[in-house]
Amino acid sequence: MKTMGLQQLCLVSPKNFPHPKASAMASGAEDFLAKAMRFETLEEAIAPCSLVLGTSARQRHIGWPLLTPRQLSEKIQPNATPSTPAAIVFGQERSGLSNEQLQKCHYHIIIPANKDYASLNLAAAVQIICYELKIGFDSFSNPSNSVEMPEFPLANAHQMELFFEHLDKTLHEIDFHHASQSTLLMSRLRRLFLRAQLDSQEVNILRGILSAILKKKDSK
Amino acid sequence: MKTMGLQQLCLVSPKNFPHPKASAMASGAEDFLAKAMRFETLEEAIAPCSLVLGTSARQRHIGWPLLTPRQLSEKIQPNATPSTPAAIVFGQERSGLSNEQLQKCHYHIIIPANKDYASLNLAAAVQIICYELKIGFDSFSNPSNSVEMPEFPLANAHQMELFFEHLDKTLHEIDFHHASQSTLLMSRLRRLFLRAQLDSQEVNILRGILSAILKKKDSK
Repeated sequence: MKTMGLQQLCLVSPKNFPHPKASAMASGAEDFLAKAMRFETLEEAIAPCSLVLGTSARQRHIGWPLLTPRQLSEKIQPNATPSTPAAIVFGQERSGLSNEQLQKCHYHIIIPANKDYASLNLAAAVQIICYELKIGFDSFSNPSNSVEMPEFPLANAHQMELFFEHLDKTLHEIDFHHASQSTLLMSRLRRLFLRAQLDSQEVNILRGILSAILKKKDSK
Repeated sequence: MKTMGLQQLCLVSPKNFPHPKASAMASGAEDFLAKAMRFETLEEAIAPCSLVLGTSARQRHIGWPLLTPRQLSEKIQPNATPSTPAAIVFGQERSGLSNEQLQKCHYHIIIPANKDYASLNLAAAVQIICYELKIGFDSFSNPSNSVEMPEFPLANAHQMELFFEHLDKTLHEIDFHHASQSTLLMSRLRRLFLRAQLDSQEVNILRGILSAILKKKDSK
């Protein structure tokens, strides 16, 4: 991360941290470990983020919008700000990210690899992603690539979770959820609305509609 | 190397090889260690090569033609053949390649990095180079960069208009539309859902939800 100019390491529920072995291996980058932030859950870690990108070794059952590492900085550059940063999420060395964790992401990143032997270890995957971000941002920092400001800030992950809870509740209330399919349905709706990268005003409009549906239902 | 589709590891004067620790860490890539070639000198190792590219962390006293990792495959592709392969030469973990070794190379490769902390370790440098070669060769072998087929076809404009009419009607029925603002509101919702590039199944789901809202409202 430090060699490639990235800024903030966040750890979710680390087993052993801080750890003298980590510090020893960080030679010259101890400052990164010292300023690393620690969270109990992925949700807390990504709450302020406007864009959440999850790394995955394989295509999942419900295809999510995919990015290559090379496309990352194009997505991140216009949307991320210091107050609504972008997060790149990596799973554990052995198991990677769970489906539930991946469904909190706007995009999945798949690193191109040999089909017959695709298992990159975690450090290698992090290195490739950080390298591509460095190359991409270097090309953006050329002033000729200026980007327009959006009208409203993008919704952060916390706002999106509240919207999804509200949507899920509403679908139950209007009897749209059939028990056997509600998980799959919510996955498809999550994918749709995360892909759209809602701004905060759009989330307010959609939640206003959901509230109106619930109110109408109760008033009758 | 194996994850990125490279073929041949050559070791120059290794201190301990084969070594059980190396085999243990190669999980799944033991075949690469088994077929690794061993040479006493760099000269012997690169003897059959048509193109020799040396990795270096810094500009040397005598400037050499430089390549970025991204430019590598363009140089290699037209020149390397099975009988006259290209070699990418990495130095030792601590000291890198000597000036003498670098002067056996046609080009030097410098990996872009944070100027204040540029020291990539050997595994990280190898990973980046192998990744760039994979991406470069894939784009050569695959001129159209074939794209995966989507799960469902994108909704066409007609389907989207029917969806917007349905949405507009529903917003009236639940009294969400305030007359003065309904045009602006529908514009924002159109922009949102058009940006999301809905597929036909997603349109069906959303229209199913709208129908359930209307039905619920009427049944009360």
